[in-house]
Amino acid sequence: MHRFYAPDIAETIVLPETESQHAVRVLRLVEGDEIEVVDGLGHLYRCRISLAHSKKCGVEIIDCLLVPNHWKGKINVAVAPTKNLDRMEWMAEKTTEMGVDRITPLLCRHSERKELKTERLGKILVSAMKQSLKAVMPQLDEMTPIMQVLDDEALPCQRFIAYCDAATERKQFEHLYRPEDDAVILVGPEGDFSPEEVAVAVEKGFVPVTFGESRLRTETAVMYAVAACHALKQNK
Amino acid sequence: MHRFYAPDIAETIVLPETESQHAVRVLRLVEGDEIEVVDGLGHLYRCRISLAHSKKCGVEIIDCLLVPNHWKGKINVAVAPTKNLDRMEWMAEKTTEMGVDRITPLLCRHSERKELKTERLGKILVSAMKQSLKAVMPQLDEMTPIMQVLDDEALPCQRFIAYCDAATERKQFEHLYRPEDDAVILVGPEGDFSPEEVAVAVEKGFVPVTFGESRLRTETAVMYAVAACHALKQNK
Repeated sequence: MHRFYAPDIAETIVLPETESQHAVRVLRLVEGDEIEVVDGLGHLYRCRISLAHSKKCGVEIIDCLLVPNHWKGKINVAVAPTKNLDRMEWMAEKTTEMGVDRITPLLCRHSERKELKTERLGKILVSAMKQSLKAVMPQLDEMTPIMQVLDDEALPCQRFIAYCDAATERKQFEHLYRPEDDAVILVGPEGDFSPEEVAVAVEKGFVPVTFGESRLRTETAVMYAVAACHALKQNK
Repeated sequence: MHRFYAPDIAETIVLPETESQHAVRVLRLVEGDEIEVVDGLGHLYRCRISLAHSKKCGVEIIDCLLVPNHWKGKINVAVAPTKNLDRMEWMAEKTTEMGVDRITPLLCRHSERKELKTERLGKILVSAMKQSLKAVMPQLDEMTPIMQVLDDEALPCQRFIAYCDAATERKQFEHLYRPEDDAVILVGPEGDFSPEEVAVAVEKGFVPVTFGESRLRTETAVMYAVAACHALKQNK
C-alpha cells in the first residue's frame, strides 16, 4: 500500500501539498482508495481518500497503529558535514534506512563546511523513513558547535568519539558498545577533531574509539557505526 | 605520503598514465620525492621518483611490505545492480572502504539493469582502496547470471541469500554468521529474487536470511551486510 507522511494528519485529516500532489497527480489515486499515513512520531494511520484534491487531499482515518522504532537503545550520531553535500545526504538516507534516532550536524574547528541547510536533508529523511517502513522520523538538528554538544548534559551516558589520531589511546568501538543502552557517537571532519575538542570530550565522558584498521571517510564512518550498532543489537 | 596504484610496478617500475599525470601534473611531485605504490595484490612499495614524466613516471623501489587485508574470513557479495548507477557506485565505494573481498554483479530474473560496464566501478574501487589504506583490490566480476553463480562449487561454504518475502522462513543473519569463516551473501534486485532463484539457492546450501525489520534498499542491504560482518568480526 502507498505510504505518505503527514505530521499533523490527526488534526487536519488532509495530506500536505507535496504528498497530495504525489497521491493524486503522480499515483492517480481516487476517492475510496486506501493509503497509509505516518506522522513521524510513531503513528501509522490507515486512511481512505475522501477528497482526491491535488493540493489538499482529504482523508478519513480508518484506524491508527502505534509503530515505535523496533530497536532498543537509541542511536544518536553527531557528525561534521562533509564538503561534498551528496556524501552527507547519502549518509542521512542510509542511516535512516538502517535506523537512527538523532542526527546532529557538528561545527568543529577543522570543519570544511561551516553552514548547512537542513531542509533538503529533512526531505531525504522523510523518503528514507517511508522507504524503510518506519513511522518515526529521526530528529535532525541544526548545525551545532561541538562545544555546545559536549556541554549538553541530556546526552546519553554511553558516549563515543571516533578519533583518527593513532597517537591517542583509542578503544575498539565494538568491544565497548552496550547495545541495550542509548548511545551517542561523534564523527569528525576530514581534518579530524582538534586535540582540544578531544580533550574536552574526554572530560565530558566521551571515550575515544576506532572502528578498525580501515581509514574510513566521514560519511562511511557514520554509516559503519550505525550498522555496527544494529548488528551488535541483533547479535546480543 | 601520497599513495598510487600500479598493478605491474614490480616489473615496469613505471606508474600507469593516469597515476603519472596525478603525481606529476596535479601533485607536482619531482625527482627524489618519496611515494607509496600498491599493486592491489597486497604489496606496498615505498618508492622514489626517478623520472617525473607526466605520462610515464619512473620510480625506484626502496622497499616492499606485504600488507594483506586485516580481516580473517573473506566477505564476498553478489548483488543485482540497481537501475540507478550512482547507488551501485556508492555501494562499491563504501564496501571497499569498510573491506570486501569480492563483488559479483548478479543478473536475476527481476533485475532492473541487465547490463553493467565494470570499468567505472573498477576505478572507484581503486580510489576507495587507496583512500582506506589497503593494498588489496577487491575482485570485481563481470555481470553473471545468478544460476551460474549458484552453480559455482568454489564458493565459500557459508552461504546466505537475503530475501525479502516474509512468507519464506528466514533466519536473522547476525545469529548465523560465523565471522572467522569465508562467506558469500546474495542481495537481490528491487523486485526481489524469484521463488525459483531462491529454491535453487536453498538447494545449493544458501540460507535465506533477513537483516531485520527495516526494509533496506538493495545497496543499503549490501553496505549493511558488509558492515555487520566487520562489526561481528571485531566483536568476537
